Amino acid sequence: MDKVLLDYGSGGRASHRFVNDLFFRHLGNDILARMDDAAVVSLRGAVAVSTDSFVVDPIFFPGGDIGSLAVHGTVNDVAMMGARPLFLTCGFILEEGLPMDDLERVVASMGEAARRAGVRVVAGDTKVVPRGAADKIFINTTGVGQVLVDPAPSGHRAEVGDAVLVSGTMGDHGLAILSTRQGLSFDSPVRSDSAALGGLVEKLLAAVGDVHVLRDPTRGGLATTLNEIAGQSGVGIELTEQAIPVDPAVAGGCAVLGLDPLYLANEGKCICILPEAKAQAALAVLRADPLGAGAAVIGRVVAQHQGKVALVTPLGGKRLLGMLEGEQLPRIC
Amino acid sequence: MDKVLLDYGSGGRASHRFVNDLFFRHLGNDILARMDDAAVVSLRGAVAVSTDSFVVDPIFFPGGDIGSLAVHGTVNDVAMMGARPLFLTCGFILEEGLPMDDLERVVASMGEAARRAGVRVVAGDTKVVPRGAADKIFINTTGVGQVLVDPAPSGHRAEVGDAVLVSGTMGDHGLAILSTRQGLSFDSPVRSDSAALGGLVEKLLAAVGDVHVLRDPTRGGLATTLNEIAGQSGVGIELTEQAIPVDPAVAGGCAVLGLDPLYLANEGKCICILPEAKAQAALAVLRADPLGAGAAVIGRVVAQHQGKVALVTPLGGKRLLGMLEGEQLPRIC
Repeated sequence: MDKVLLDYGSGGRASHRFVNDLFFRHLGNDILARMDDAAVVSLRGAVAVSTDSFVVDPIFFPGGDIGSLAVHGTVNDVAMMGARPLFLTCGFILEEGLPMDDLERVVASMGEAARRAGVRVVAGDTKVVPRGAADKIFINTTGVGQVLVDPAPSGHRAEVGDAVLVSGTMGDHGLAILSTRQGLSFDSPVRSDSAALGGLVEKLLAAVGDVHVLRDPTRGGLATTLNEIAGQSGVGIELTEQAIPVDPAVAGGCAVLGLDPLYLANEGKCICILPEAKAQAALAVLRADPLGAGAAVIGRVVAQHQGKVALVTPLGGKRLLGMLEGEQLPRIC
Repeated sequence: MDKVLLDYGSGGRASHRFVNDLFFRHLGNDILARMDDAAVVSLRGAVAVSTDSFVVDPIFFPGGDIGSLAVHGTVNDVAMMGARPLFLTCGFILEEGLPMDDLERVVASMGEAARRAGVRVVAGDTKVVPRGAADKIFINTTGVGQVLVDPAPSGHRAEVGDAVLVSGTMGDHGLAILSTRQGLSFDSPVRSDSAALGGLVEKLLAAVGDVHVLRDPTRGGLATTLNEIAGQSGVGIELTEQAIPVDPAVAGGCAVLGLDPLYLANEGKCICILPEAKAQAALAVLRADPLGAGAAVIGRVVAQHQGKVALVTPLGGKRLLGMLEGEQLPRIC
């Protein structure tokens, strides 16, 4: 039994053994163990719900793998609503012939990531498709969390005068995937920043109260996400180029490959937009946590160029940063 | 723009237009329209959560398609906990080159199915993978519903003396998929029973109160699902062979293909296990609804052969019905 067989998705005896053996061992808890058609959990009031499918290629990369990424990505989307992530569901689509060792490594990594993030996997599903009908493994996770603040942060709430912060360096995940896929190595290793931000967000909310916008700049990177926020809130956003943190190895790799780190995905960073008066307090909270050690104030919300993002260069020039056009990086998450 | 391009999954401008155009048109509502990282919904108390990935091949089949199936399958899993399905999330994995007409047909079908089932799609995600890395379209849906009864029905609650009912004929979905895939046609057309059972379940609970077990016999069919219940509850189940409803066209097709309808998937039927004294009332409620018109009492829960399911044949013989062994029908849902 060293490879995944079609049987394992049949719903019959073979898949039962398989599910019991592997998934319960790494993801099990008392709710999942009931094995009914749905899990029953207890919730009250405003609840955040988010879903994401993960198709990253390669499935193992420096700093993570598709399993931990599937936990972090959805936990972070829930946390960005000012919510405490509590429960995850996992849907696996496996290609017949996937080495069992690879699957076990991925599922073990999911279990470890879920424990660290404080979430429980309460429901799951496994499908196996014939060889060639999928590429190795795809994972959907859906996350449910309790919203901690009212009003919740939202892309619609950026206000003129707000400060724009990021919790660390930009582009690490995207460059790590791309360089692994292309077999490139740089002088300094580039690692994905894949990490769960629920704890960091809770500290931030506890310390500074109302935060207007929280968003994690994944596909399309910082530039695309800020364009979305500018559009949703009907404001302009102005960034100071040299204030945006970029790891020197990422900057170097991007220069070689002709990529812009502001358009590369991040999987363990957040954008935080809040009143200017709270910016220094927020920065201190972020920097006190290892996941926010590289945090910086990178710009502000302005009344000009509504719906657009402008970058102020070191020489004082200003250029518009559009959304990502085209697809340079398929299967980045 | 007649085919899905890699761009559409990039998170950038092309995917925004794509998402706005297509998904909002068919699935849009005020919650989804906020386009934050997660949806915020209001819930109170016991909540049922279920997830399922759909990889059915072909994606269009008599009686449905992968879009309506993805709604029905998850709505039914939530309903089986005695819950009212309220919200769905949808995660799409699309193969580059998928005809846009096919995608639109699938998404429109999801929208129609969701409206009929009374659920709202509150969060979504779209990934596009290069040609050959997936087969046309895979859809994950996760459903959230409010549990209406306490205790909730559960596979652990079957009791000796309970009656076992099904809401209609067995095996329709499985045979419809298999015969379509193999290009077979029978004298009478075989159609999938794909349908949402939330309304039927609510009527049943309102009329008869506590129902011990509700379960929809999907992959592995009636026989496998009853084996699961027998194992979870530590009881035996005895079925009367000639009481189990099977459409004559399905029975005929199964005879030709050497398949057993008791092991074929259903996507619009439920198993209901409840005290014998309530069986006739439950049967009347089920039969009064078009989705339960073919309902029947098919057996009872017994103290003998714990964890096993026995079939009593017309001549009075008894044979054990095991779980499905092996995989005759990959990509059935």
